[in-house]
Amino acid sequence: MASFLVNGWPAQSVDAADRGLMYGDGVFRTLVTRAGRALNWSHHYRLLARDCSRLALACPAEPLLLAEIARVMADDGVVKVIVTRGASGRGYGFGDDVEPTRIVAAWPGVPSDPLAGRDGVRVRRCGLALAIQPRLAGVKSLNRLENVLARAEWRDPAVREGLLADAEGRLVEATASNVFFARAGVLVTPALARCGVEGAQRGRVLALAQAEGIACEVRDAGFDELELADEVFLTNSVIGVWPVVALGERRWPPGPLARRFQQLIGEDDARGA
Amino acid sequence: MASFLVNGWPAQSVDAADRGLMYGDGVFRTLVTRAGRALNWSHHYRLLARDCSRLALACPAEPLLLAEIARVMADDGVVKVIVTRGASGRGYGFGDDVEPTRIVAAWPGVPSDPLAGRDGVRVRRCGLALAIQPRLAGVKSLNRLENVLARAEWRDPAVREGLLADAEGRLVEATASNVFFARAGVLVTPALARCGVEGAQRGRVLALAQAEGIACEVRDAGFDELELADEVFLTNSVIGVWPVVALGERRWPPGPLARRFQQLIGEDDARGA
Repeated sequence: MASFLVNGWPAQSVDAADRGLMYGDGVFRTLVTRAGRALNWSHHYRLLARDCSRLALACPAEPLLLAEIARVMADDGVVKVIVTRGASGRGYGFGDDVEPTRIVAAWPGVPSDPLAGRDGVRVRRCGLALAIQPRLAGVKSLNRLENVLARAEWRDPAVREGLLADAEGRLVEATASNVFFARAGVLVTPALARCGVEGAQRGRVLALAQAEGIACEVRDAGFDELELADEVFLTNSVIGVWPVVALGERRWPPGPLARRFQQLIGEDDARGA
Repeated sequence: MASFLVNGWPAQSVDAADRGLMYGDGVFRTLVTRAGRALNWSHHYRLLARDCSRLALACPAEPLLLAEIARVMADDGVVKVIVTRGASGRGYGFGDDVEPTRIVAAWPGVPSDPLAGRDGVRVRRCGLALAIQPRLAGVKSLNRLENVLARAEWRDPAVREGLLADAEGRLVEATASNVFFARAGVLVTPALARCGVEGAQRGRVLALAQAEGIACEVRDAGFDELELADEVFLTNSVIGVWPVVALGERRWPPGPLARRFQQLIGEDDARGA
C-alpha cells in the first residue's frame, strides 16, 4: 500500500479533473531511497526537469522534492515523483493559470531479487512495436499504454522482461528498463531519439562508463546486433543491473560489464550519489 | 465545475494509485445530454465497448452507464465517461484481481457556438505529427499527450482547430475532432488504422451518409487532396459539424454536405438516437 503527498499534503486521492488522469498530461520518475535519501538523485532530477521542460511544465524545486521524499519515506523504499499539468476544465487546451500537481508516492521496502542480479534473467521480444514520436522520445511521460500492453503479452513468471523494437525494427528498450549490450569490449545502448524512456539508471551507467574509461556508444542498434553481443544487461532504478542470460534460443553468461556496473552502482549509492 | 460519479459514488477525486493517472491506462468518451439523455448513445457505447476490448478492459454495462449519466446530469450538459484499469500496485503488469474504475463526469450546459456552425471556422495545420501505432489507432485512450501538445501550438482564438498529419504526412484528424472533405460529391474521411481517434460523431456521420445514399469513402488521404476539396468540415460530439472556411491561404464557403449533416444530426438528436 502506497502513501502519497499531493502538493505537500498527505492524501490518498487526486482531483478527478487532473489532466494527469484525463490525458496523461504529466511526467514521472521512480527512485529508491535509503534511510529517506534518494539514490542517484542527480540523474533523477536532471531528467525530471528535462522532461518537464519538454512538456512546458514547471518543474518543482529540487529542495522541495527532496524534503517531500524524506517526509513520505523515512526508510528504505521506492518513491515515485509525478508532476502533472494540474486540474483544468474540459479540453486539450489549458490556460496560464493552471497549477501543476506534484505527487510524491512511497512504497515501503525495496523489492530485492538477489538471484536475478546474480544469475541473470530470461527475456523475450515483445510483439508490440513502439511508435516513433520524436516529440515524446526519451520522456518518462504518463502516456505509458504501450508499456502496459507490451507487459501484458506474457504471464510466464520465468520471463522477467520484454524487449521492445520501434516500428522500424530497431532495438529500443525493455518494458520497464533500458538495455545495454557489449561487443568486443564496447558498450552500446540504443539512442532514444525516436521513442523509449531515458531511465535515470541508464544515465548513471553512461556517466560511470565515461568516468571509468569504458568505451560506450549511444546509437541505433538492431536485434541482429544484440544476438551477436558478448553480453547483455538491463538497468532501472529499482532492479539496478540485471544480466540477460536468455532471449529465445540465445544464451549468455552474466558478463563482466554487468558485474562491473553492479559494483560501481553499489559504490555510488554508498557514497550517496 | 464538474461533478463526478466514481464507481457510482459522488466524489471529486480518484484513488491516487489509479492506473488511469499512473499510465493513462484507460479509455473515455465525451457526449452531450439533453434532459439527462445521452445523444448519439448507440455510437458512443459501441465505440466505448470496442475501445475497452482493445485494451482488454471490462466495459461497464450499458444500463448502468445510462443510469449514471442521468444521475449526474439531469439537464443539458457535457458528460465524459472514463473507464480505467483501476488501482494497482507499482509496475506496468496487473493481476486478474484489478477492478476497473468507472468515472462519469458532468459539466452543466452545452457550449453553444452558433456562429462557428453557421459561418464556419478557420483552422491551421499543426507541426506535431501523430505517431503511427496500429495497436492504439482509433482508440480514445487516456494517452492524449499528442493532442495536448498539438493544441498548445497556437493561441490565436480566431483559429479554432488544428489539423494533424501522421508521421508519413497523411491527413488524420484535428486535435479534438474528426475531419471530412468532399470532392465531386463524394465524402471522404481518413481511415484511422494507424493513429487518430474514432469519434462517435464521425461514426454517426458515416451511418447517416450510408442511410441517405451519400457516397462516402473511408481511406487514406493527403493534405494535397484536402486542398483540392470542394468543402471541408469537422465533427465531434460537442460541436456537431463545423464547416472549415480557411486553412492557410485556402478558402472555402460552408458547403452543402456540412449543412446536410448539421440538419440530419439535429433530426437524429430530436428523435433521441
